[in-house]
Amino acid sequence: MTKVAIVGASGYSGEELVRLLLSHPHAELVAVTSRQQAGQTVGQVFPKFASHPRARALRFVDPNAELLARAADVVFLALPHGVAAEFAVPLLKLGCRVIDLSADFRLKSAAIYKEFYAHDHPAPELLAQSVYGMPEVHRAAIRGASLIASPGCYPTSILLPTLPLLRAGLIKPQGIIADSMSGVSGAGRKAELDYLFVECNESVRPYGVPKHRHLSEIEEQLSLAAGTGVTIQFTPHLIPVNRGILTTLYLAPAQHFTTADETAALGAQIAACYQTAYADEPFVRVLEGKALPDTKNVVGTNVLELAWRLDPRTGRLIVMSAQDNIVKGASGQAVQSFNLLCGYPETAGLL
Amino acid sequence: MTKVAIVGASGYSGEELVRLLLSHPHAELVAVTSRQQAGQTVGQVFPKFASHPRARALRFVDPNAELLARAADVVFLALPHGVAAEFAVPLLKLGCRVIDLSADFRLKSAAIYKEFYAHDHPAPELLAQSVYGMPEVHRAAIRGASLIASPGCYPTSILLPTLPLLRAGLIKPQGIIADSMSGVSGAGRKAELDYLFVECNESVRPYGVPKHRHLSEIEEQLSLAAGTGVTIQFTPHLIPVNRGILTTLYLAPAQHFTTADETAALGAQIAACYQTAYADEPFVRVLEGKALPDTKNVVGTNVLELAWRLDPRTGRLIVMSAQDNIVKGASGQAVQSFNLLCGYPETAGLL
Amino acid sequence: MTKVAIVGASGYSGEELVRLLLSHPHAELVAVTSRQQAGQTVGQVFPKFASHPRARALRFVDPNAELLARAADVVFLALPHGVAAEFAVPLLKLGCRVIDLSADFRLKSAAIYKEFYAHDHPAPELLAQSVYGMPEVHRAAIRGASLIASPGCYPTSILLPTLPLLRAGLIKPQGIIADSMSGVSGAGRKAELDYLFVECNESVRPYGVPKHRHLSEIEEQLSLAAGTGVTIQFTPHLIPVNRGILTTLYLAPAQHFTTADETAALGAQIAACYQTAYADEPFVRVLEGKALPDTKNVVGTNVLELAWRLDPRTGRLIVMSAQDNIVKGASGQAVQSFNLLCGYPETAGLL
Amino acid sequence: MTKVAIVGASGYSGEELVRLLLSHPHAELVAVTSRQQAGQTVGQVFPKFASHPRARALRFVDPNAELLARAADVVFLALPHGVAAEFAVPLLKLGCRVIDLSADFRLKSAAIYKEFYAHDHPAPELLAQSVYGMPEVHRAAIRGASLIASPGCYPTSILLPTLPLLRAGLIKPQGIIADSMSGVSGAGRKAELDYLFVECNESVRPYGVPKHRHLSEIEEQLSLAAGTGVTIQFTPHLIPVNRGILTTLYLAPAQHFTTADETAALGAQIAACYQTAYADEPFVRVLEGKALPDTKNVVGTNVLELAWRLDPRTGRLIVMSAQDNIVKGASGQAVQSFNLLCGYPETAGLL
Repeated sequence: MTKVAIVGASGYSGEELVRLLLSHPHAELVAVTSRQQAGQTVGQVFPKFASHPRARALRFVDPNAELLARAADVVFLALPHGVAAEFAVPLLKLGCRVIDLSADFRLKSAAIYKEFYAHDHPAPELLAQSVYGMPEVHRAAIRGASLIASPGCYPTSILLPTLPLLRAGLIKPQGIIADSMSGVSGAGRKAELDYLFVECNESVRPYGVPKHRHLSEIEEQLSLAAGTGVTIQFTPHLIPVNRGILTTLYLAPAQHFTTADETAALGAQIAACYQTAYADEPFVRVLEGKALPDTKNVVGTNVLELAWRLDPRTGRLIVMSAQDNIVKGASGQAVQSFNLLCGYPETAGLL
Repeated sequence: MTKVAIVGASGYSGEELVRLLLSHPHAELVAVTSRQQAGQTVGQVFPKFASHPRARALRFVDPNAELLARAADVVFLALPHGVAAEFAVPLLKLGCRVIDLSADFRLKSAAIYKEFYAHDHPAPELLAQSVYGMPEVHRAAIRGASLIASPGCYPTSILLPTLPLLRAGLIKPQGIIADSMSGVSGAGRKAELDYLFVECNESVRPYGVPKHRHLSEIEEQLSLAAGTGVTIQFTPHLIPVNRGILTTLYLAPAQHFTTADETAALGAQIAACYQTAYADEPFVRVLEGKALPDTKNVVGTNVLELAWRLDPRTGRLIVMSAQDNIVKGASGQAVQSFNLLCGYPETAGLL
Repeated sequence: MTKVAIVGASGYSGEELVRLLLSHPHAELVAVTSRQQAGQTVGQVFPKFASHPRARALRFVDPNAELLARAADVVFLALPHGVAAEFAVPLLKLGCRVIDLSADFRLKSAAIYKEFYAHDHPAPELLAQSVYGMPEVHRAAIRGASLIASPGCYPTSILLPTLPLLRAGLIKPQGIIADSMSGVSGAGRKAELDYLFVECNESVRPYGVPKHRHLSEIEEQLSLAAGTGVTIQFTPHLIPVNRGILTTLYLAPAQHFTTADETAALGAQIAACYQTAYADEPFVRVLEGKALPDTKNVVGTNVLELAWRLDPRTGRLIVMSAQDNIVKGASGQAVQSFNLLCGYPETAGLL
Repeated sequence: MTKVAIVGASGYSGEELVRLLLSHPHAELVAVTSRQQAGQTVGQVFPKFASHPRARALRFVDPNAELLARAADVVFLALPHGVAAEFAVPLLKLGCRVIDLSADFRLKSAAIYKEFYAHDHPAPELLAQSVYGMPEVHRAAIRGASLIASPGCYPTSILLPTLPLLRAGLIKPQGIIADSMSGVSGAGRKAELDYLFVECNESVRPYGVPKHRHLSEIEEQLSLAAGTGVTIQFTPHLIPVNRGILTTLYLAPAQHFTTADETAALGAQIAACYQTAYADEPFVRVLEGKALPDTKNVVGTNVLELAWRLDPRTGRLIVMSAQDNIVKGASGQAVQSFNLLCGYPETAGLL
C-alpha cells in the first residue's frame, strides 16, 4: 500500500482522483485538500462517495506541503497551472513523489510555457526532471520519475492516435489538423456564466481558436516523435455532454494512394502500425470493422478508442478517437502513472 | 396570398414548414399529407400548433398529386430522396411549382446521383431544369424557377462560408476540410435505435466517414464557383442537441502569410470579401470582434452566423459557421426560396 | 405605439422581454438597463437578436429612474425581489406605469412578504395598489392598473389549473398538493456552482422543501378564490432542460365518486368548468382525448396546456400543466398584461 | 464461482447485468441470449465492454432453456413480461434458479396481474413460490428461493422509503401519493418515436396516469407491510436523463403535529425508524442535515438515497428518494439477490 494525497480535490479531476484512489487496491488516501471545503468530510462534499467508510471519515484540510509530505508518499496535484508548481517544489524537496495534473511541468521550455500561459514559469529548474506522464509513450521514464506531468485531455486524444504513425514515418509531420469536441467538465468546476447549464445545453461552439494552450504540449510531443519541429492546427469545441472528448484528425500519409490496391496496401501498414503499438496496451482500443468511436463507450473508463479511414478521394487519413476527458484524459491516466511509479500492475484500480 | 401544400409533413422539416407557413403573411396552407397521419388534424399531430385555428381545422390527407395540384400553386416536398421525384414529376406536369427539400434535384448529373445515393435517378430529365435553392447564390434563377432543389443542411453550413472566398480567388480550391457537428433532428423522425435518447445523450460520434452523401452537392456547388473540379474532405458528427449545425472549415488562402503585416492585409481582404457578399443579406451574419459562432444564437431562426480566423502559425484560414439545421438548413431556406419565387419580400414569414 | 423600457435586461426573463418587445407591433423599446452590460448594444450582449436593427442600435445603460421615466411610458422591472421595489417607487411617482416581474408586489401583506422573503418589505404602501398580473383571473383590474405584479412561474403553473375548480366549488380548498419540475433557466442567469452544466445535466433533484417562497403568492390567490384560507403542499424539482415547468396537481373533488357513472358525471362537470373558464382564452389550452401535457409543446410560446384525470381508485383529481417558465411563467405573461394595460389586443406580439 | 446466464441481454437492464456479472468476483458469465444479436460477441454488441477478455470471447446465442440449464446454475431473465414466464417454467423444471427482472412473478394474484397487464398470467402455479427480490425487506426468503421476482424500478424507489414507516405505524396506510421522474432508459431499448432523442430532450411529461402497471406490486407490498389493503396515487414522469429515478412521496403521519415541539418529537421517531431500518444496509443512504437526494449522486451505483422533511404547515411528511433505475431499480438489485441466493457477501460485485 502507498500513502497518497490529493491537493485541490474539489474540482472535477480532483473528484475523479478521489473516486479512483478510494477503491484502489494499493493506495491509501490519507489527505485531501481544498481551501473552500476544509473541515468537511469527503462524503459531505461528494455525496456520491458517502457509502465508502473512508469518505465518511476523511476530512478536507487546507493545503500544507509539510503536513502533506509527512503523511503521504505520493501527492497528486489537481490545481490550476501556476499554482501547482508552488506545491511541487516543496513537496519534491521533502521527498514526495509528485504527479501533477496541471500544465506546469509538461513542457521542456520555459519560454514556450510563457508564450502559451502568459506568465513566467514558476519553477523552471524542474522542467528537465519532469516526465510527461503518458504511459503508452514514456513508460520506462515514468517508472523512475519523481515528478510526473500528467498530460492534458486534448493532448491525450490527439497524441495516442498520432504518435505511432509519426514514429513509423507513415504520415507527414506537417499539416496535421485536430478537430476536437469536449464535454463541459473540461472547463472545470468554476462558477462562470459561460458554463451554466442554460448556456451550454442546446449549444455547440468553438473556442480558443486558433491558438489553444494545449498546442504547446501537443507540438512538443509530436516534434519529439517526428524528430523535427511540428506545428499543428487544433480547434476545440464545447458540446453539451458532461464528459468525453471526440477528436477527428486529418493526416497526410507519407505515401501517395489512389487506386484500391494502393489504398489496401497502405491500410495494411496502418493497421500493422497500430497493432504493434497498441495490441498489448490495456487502455487503447483500436476498433475494427465498421465501428467508429463514440464517447459513450469510454466514459467512466480509462480507455481511449480509435478508428481510422483512408480516403482515396482526397489522399487523406482520418483518425478518430474517443476518451473520457476526466479519466484517460486526466485522473485515470495519472493513476496509471502512479501504478508504474510504485511498481503495481499498470491496470490496478483502473478496470 | 399563395396556396401552398406540404407533402410528407410529419417529419421534422415538414413540421417546421407547417410552423413557418401557418404564420406566413402570404401563404395559405391548403393541404398537408402523411400516410400515417391521414385523418388527423395538424393540431392533433403537432400539439404545439394547436392554438392556431388553421391547425385545428386542417387535416392530414394521403398524398395525391392531382388533388394537390388542384388545391395548391406551390407544393413543398419533405420526402425521402427517391420518393420526392415521384411526386415532383406529376406536380410539375399539372402546373404546380415545386420546392423539393430532398436530394433528388440538387445535382446536375444523374451519374453522380447514382454514385452517392445508390440507385438510378428517378427523373433525370428534370435535372437540367431544377435550380439549387440557395438564395444568396442563385437568387435570380430561383425567381424564375418551376422546380427548386432546396439545399441540404450540411451543404448550407459549408457553402455559404466558402463560396465567396472561392469566387474571389482568396482560397485554393483544393484541400478544403469541413468538420461538422449536427443535432439529432438531422437524422429525421425515424424509429431507429441509433437515435433513441439514451443512445445519443452523453454521446458524440462521427458517422458517414469518409464519403457522406452530401459531398455530392457540396462539391458540385464548389466546383461551379471555383470553375474547376473540387474535392473536399467532410466529416459529420452527431451531438446531443435537438437542432443546430456547427461547421469548422480548414481552408488554404491562395496567398502566403506569416508576418503580422501579411496576416492583417489578408485579413482585410477576407473581411471585405464577406462584407461584399453578406452585408446586405438578411440571413447571413458575419460576427465581429472576439465573437465565435454558437448554435444557440441561431436556433429557431433562418440565420447562419460565421466567424473566421487566420492562423499565421499554420498558414490556414479557419471559418466557423452555425445554423439551425431545420430552418436555414432546410425549411426556412425553402420558404426563403418560396418568397423569391412568388415575388414576396425575401424575409416574409422568416423574421 | 407605446414607449417601453426594461430594467435588468441581462437575465433570462429580461432577455425574453427584449425578444418579445423588439418584435411587438405596438411597443417601441427605448431603453434597456444593466449595470454589467452598460455601453454594449443589445446585439452584442444577445447575439441571437443581432439581426434586428434595433438590437444593433440600442445600448444598455445604467439604470436611472428619472431618465427611464422621461423616455418610457411603461417600464418592465426584471430585477431581484427587494431591488425591484427601489425602482418601482420613483418610476410610479414620475408617472410611469410599472410591470414588475419580481415578487415585490405580488402579496397584499407585508408581514407574509417578510415571512417568506426574510426582509422587510421595501415599499409596503404600494401593496394595496398593485394588481396581480394574471390576465385570465384579474383582467379588468389589470386594464386600469399603474403597478402590475407579474406572477411567478410556479404560481402560474399551479393557479391556472386550480382556480376555476376552486371557484366552482368542484374541489376542496384544503389538501392540495403541487409537484413541479422546472428547467434551469428558472434559477436565473447566476454564476453559481449549483447551476453549472455538469451539476444539472444527468441530475434531478428537489429543492426548497417544504417551504418555497412562491407558496406565499400561490396561497394568497387560492385563498381569494376559495373565500377561505388555503394552505398547500408544494415541491419544486430541478430538471435538466433549459425551459419549461411541468406541474402535477393532486386535488380532492368536493364530491365523492367511485362508480363509473359517478366518475363520468363528475368528469362532465370538470370539463364544463374548464370549458367555461378557458374556451375563449388564447393562452390556455385544455387537452382532449388521451393527450397529456408536454413542455416541448409549449416552450417558446405563451400557452399553458393542461389535462386532467379522475382516479376512482383513490378519489382524487389529477391535473397536469405545462408552460414555458420564461414566457407564460414570466415575460410573456407580463407582455400580455402590457397589452391589456395599453388597450392593445391581448395577443399582440405573443402569437 | 457460480455459472450464470442472461436471457434477453440486449436491452438496458440486460446490458447492465452483463456489466455487473462480467466483473463479479463469484459469477462466471457462461451464456447471454438475444435473438437479434445471436452470433455476435458481447464486445461487438456493447463496445464499452470490449476491453474485457470475456466480452470478446462470449457470443450471444438464441435462447434455449435446455442449453441454458445445462450451462448455468442461475439464470437472469431480462425479458418483457409474459415472455419471461415462458422461460422461467422450463428453467425451474431443469433445476436452475431463476432471477426474473420482469413483472411476471412479482404479484401473488393472477387476477391482479391480469387487471394490470391485460393478459392471463402465463404460469400462475409459480406465483406462490416466487419471492419478491427486495433484499432489505425479504432477505431471508431470498436466501432460500428458487424463483426471485426482482422488483420494478418505480416500486423500489417508493417501497424502500415507505415500508419502514408503515411497519412502524408512523404513517397512515391510506392517502399515499408518489410522484416520480424517470430517465428514458426506463422505457427500454425500443425503436419507438416517443423515445427518440428529439422527442425526449427539452421535454418533460407525465404518462400512465392514473393507473400505471407498477401500482400492482407497490400496493401489494405496501398492503403486506400495513396489514391492510393499501391503495396509492402514483404519477410517473419522463425526464431527459439517461438514468435515475427521483420519487417524492407525500405521506400522512399517524400522529398530529403542529408545534415545533410536536414536530421535533415526531422527527425523532422518524429518524429512529430509518436508523433502525437502514443504518446497517449497504445500499440505502439516509441523508442528513440539509442534503436532499439528487440522482447524480447515485447513478452507476446500487445505492438508493433518501431524505425526509416534516411540514407543520400541512401536517405532511415528505420523503424523497433517488436511485439509478437500471442498477438499484433493476440489475443491481437482482445481483444483490443473486449474492444472497448463493451465500456470497451481499455487496459482492456491487461496490
